[in-house]
Amino acid sequence: MSQSLVEQAKKAAAFAAVDEFVKSGMKVGVGSGSTVVYVVNRLCEKMRAGELPNIVTVPTSFQSEQLLREAGLTVCGLNDLGDDMLDVAIDGADECSVVKQDDAIVGIDAIKGGGGCQLQEKLVAANAKKFVIVADYRKISPGGLGVAWTKGVPVEVVPQAYRSVQRRIRLLGGSSELRTGSGKAGPVVTDNGNMLLDAVFGECAHQRNLELAQALSCTPGIVEHGLFLDMACCAFFGMQDGSICTWRTLDRSTASL
Amino acid sequence: MSQSLVEQAKKAAAFAAVDEFVKSGMKVGVGSGSTVVYVVNRLCEKMRAGELPNIVTVPTSFQSEQLLREAGLTVCGLNDLGDDMLDVAIDGADECSVVKQDDAIVGIDAIKGGGGCQLQEKLVAANAKKFVIVADYRKISPGGLGVAWTKGVPVEVVPQAYRSVQRRIRLLGGSSELRTGSGKAGPVVTDNGNMLLDAVFGECAHQRNLELAQALSCTPGIVEHGLFLDMACCAFFGMQDGSICTWRTLDRSTASL
Amino acid sequence: MSQSLVEQAKKAAAFAAVDEFVKSGMKVGVGSGSTVVYVVNRLCEKMRAGELPNIVTVPTSFQSEQLLREAGLTVCGLNDLGDDMLDVAIDGADECSVVKQDDAIVGIDAIKGGGGCQLQEKLVAANAKKFVIVADYRKISPGGLGVAWTKGVPVEVVPQAYRSVQRRIRLLGGSSELRTGSGKAGPVVTDNGNMLLDAVFGECAHQRNLELAQALSCTPGIVEHGLFLDMACCAFFGMQDGSICTWRTLDRSTASL
Amino acid sequence: MSQSLVEQAKKAAAFAAVDEFVKSGMKVGVGSGSTVVYVVNRLCEKMRAGELPNIVTVPTSFQSEQLLREAGLTVCGLNDLGDDMLDVAIDGADECSVVKQDDAIVGIDAIKGGGGCQLQEKLVAANAKKFVIVADYRKISPGGLGVAWTKGVPVEVVPQAYRSVQRRIRLLGGSSELRTGSGKAGPVVTDNGNMLLDAVFGECAHQRNLELAQALSCTPGIVEHGLFLDMACCAFFGMQDGSICTWRTLDRSTASL
Repeated sequence: MSQSLVEQAKKAAAFAAVDEFVKSGMKVGVGSGSTVVYVVNRLCEKMRAGELPNIVTVPTSFQSEQLLREAGLTVCGLNDLGDDMLDVAIDGADECSVVKQDDAIVGIDAIKGGGGCQLQEKLVAANAKKFVIVADYRKISPGGLGVAWTKGVPVEVVPQAYRSVQRRIRLLGGSSELRTGSGKAGPVVTDNGNMLLDAVFGECAHQRNLELAQALSCTPGIVEHGLFLDMACCAFFGMQDGSICTWRTLDRSTASL
Repeated sequence: MSQSLVEQAKKAAAFAAVDEFVKSGMKVGVGSGSTVVYVVNRLCEKMRAGELPNIVTVPTSFQSEQLLREAGLTVCGLNDLGDDMLDVAIDGADECSVVKQDDAIVGIDAIKGGGGCQLQEKLVAANAKKFVIVADYRKISPGGLGVAWTKGVPVEVVPQAYRSVQRRIRLLGGSSELRTGSGKAGPVVTDNGNMLLDAVFGECAHQRNLELAQALSCTPGIVEHGLFLDMACCAFFGMQDGSICTWRTLDRSTASL
Repeated sequence: MSQSLVEQAKKAAAFAAVDEFVKSGMKVGVGSGSTVVYVVNRLCEKMRAGELPNIVTVPTSFQSEQLLREAGLTVCGLNDLGDDMLDVAIDGADECSVVKQDDAIVGIDAIKGGGGCQLQEKLVAANAKKFVIVADYRKISPGGLGVAWTKGVPVEVVPQAYRSVQRRIRLLGGSSELRTGSGKAGPVVTDNGNMLLDAVFGECAHQRNLELAQALSCTPGIVEHGLFLDMACCAFFGMQDGSICTWRTLDRSTASL
Repeated sequence: MSQSLVEQAKKAAAFAAVDEFVKSGMKVGVGSGSTVVYVVNRLCEKMRAGELPNIVTVPTSFQSEQLLREAGLTVCGLNDLGDDMLDVAIDGADECSVVKQDDAIVGIDAIKGGGGCQLQEKLVAANAKKFVIVADYRKISPGGLGVAWTKGVPVEVVPQAYRSVQRRIRLLGGSSELRTGSGKAGPVVTDNGNMLLDAVFGECAHQRNLELAQALSCTPGIVEHGLFLDMACCAFFGMQDGSICTWRTLDRSTASL
């Protein structure tokens, strides 16, 4: 029954995100994970009711592509958008923390990539005018990342560089393991043919995360990492009691006034 | 205790294979899996005792490459052999059956690829003068394949072809699933960036396996399949009671006399 | 002016193929190359005139995907077809020969892959109910392959196998070179991350081609080769004088009567 | 004869680099290109004379791996070094500029990647204690990059991101083209299965290059770019007159004294 309450909360969060951010004619990035299933359900429901004509979706994973196609939604790739950006992208997260200034929310940080799709997920998020997170309450770490999610920051590396990237991660104060899984011998391979390191840096507040993100981005051999800092404008969390908790960042164009 | 007997048997089988087939100066293909660990142990032991000078090894997977390097053995790739073949390759199997003619063993069939490495494993086996299997008793299906191993023949496919290959497998009388696993969302990806189908054809005797192997090899989109028919000259099985069961094919050059 | 005659002939051949084989509502595979440009032009022209509603196209290369999208045609991938086959695929060829029995055309053989796309091209051809070739007169070698096209059969190989596949090609009586090109140092890499060997076997009649095709398909490390034997039901050639030469295979269902 | 003078100069530059920086027992990164051929020749010559025992080399490309193996040198991959760094890496460049402070050389900037290997080249350079450039005089652009080399900064991108990266490059003030070449239809594919954009930003001095490098590194979808800023400690240029021009950066540990 607790499970069903959480599921209801996830559903409510996903529905709220779609209802607020997706309008007819939009190009919509759709992430992956258990909460995103409800995002697809809501998109499908509204499309069938004729409320969202001419929606085009861009998935971030094999899973979301399957869900979107089965739901009858129009699916395309990022390259097919030409010079346009996505109007909005909605995705889950493995952990979220909030960046505050004088009690105002000025940013949302997240870790993504537990499913190994952070490259495609960051591409979609970075190419959307608005990035919205939907998740359940277990993903909330108010004060900083690395608290609720202790497996580390997922880092996609080209195979010939995994050892040198591990050394770099140690220099940055972390430790890392090459990710393995079931279904094949040896390391997990990503959809782009790369490997995954899970880099544990302990609990990190916003400034430390910024430094780590930049250092990782500049490390040769790293294709993408799972730190999504200051990218989301809004996060909806389904809470244990069935309610929705919402974080909204200040609109920066007005924040500086 | 039963476990330790089986482990002893695996070890005895692996040691027997190395002792009989690996000589100094040889180029040796080394497969993967729990029995192959003992193959590497034995190679290492003999090398350190100075009994196997100038051995060069070619691994079939990330796992065996790690084991071989840690053991201090010389490792190279197939391309580095130039125009030479491997002298011998020793590998495990997911299932083995025996092909008999007038009570004589004329062939050994095997399924490999449970670990998703059948491409590299078949490359190594096909480029060795002798291919030797080491396994434990649970892998023996005397009358045909598809009995002890019911998960299906592992088939590596290029991503853009998995649906069309599934249709082809149905036409061949089988059914298939795209392999998933833990560690990443969506399908398992191989070290060559492809996907895996597990194709179930039921129990198949030698002739049927030959037909399937050829049909699969000629199907566009299939990179490699896990049917290793008539490739091994010898198989060593560690039995439940700690003994070794050995299959040897007739030397075909003399068989026709 | 001779050039313009040839171009007119190519165009006429391409238009004839589209006009005869593509009907409204069809799923159409579209190949690549200079003649296929006219195929896309004709599809676009007819679609805009409202003559081909609900056409869905599947391209065989980056080039044809670009052409099709620019022309405003609906594009999807092979996997998106689900369990359906393409109704027809139209593609170019590097060389074509005709297989005759008692003066009747019973088959069309072709070499493809000069552009390195034979994997995707064979996938599309093999998954179409009808495969139609459009080409110009320079691609005709009536008696056998390897006459007009002397660069060899393009063979896509996984990188770790190129040396062992070269040895196998020598055993089959051929010779091969790793393909290089401009734009990058080292070997050309295919869209699937593999390498290309061009395997020269000299002039080969149908029976020899059949043997080679099967041997290549069964060689570990070969992903796909450029022998397209007995796949096309029809070939249209734009001739030097501006006319069209057409080869049609006997319908086999009636041929056995 | 002018050609032969340049070749002599390249050779002299390469020999000088090897003679100064490579000592016995070292782990040496070896780049690619026409000047690096002489690096390999010199390494081979000294090894055969017994002057460089126990050298291990790590190549940056298929070409240099072939050269090194043919020369009989020991070759391994970056991962095989374990936690060690390379002692030195010697590589060519497409263009070099010098960073000065009060007439002292404080840095060397370079563009690499004309051959599409900048990922592997940067991995090797970044994992070497010392990075040394060898080139000929045509690669010198004293005041800034983008003068002698006008084709743009080579940028390796994952295929699904090439359009979004092009948009990002425009926002950074540049323009870009997807690289094509001979040997295959469509875009050039790198050894890691990615695509290449050549991003033209015009003439750029050091500070602008720093900003571009960081912006490119942080752009999702970019695997690696060809700006090698402040990485080399020394550059040897073979001049038109057969002499060698050498740039050496101040040792920073002493520079601050």
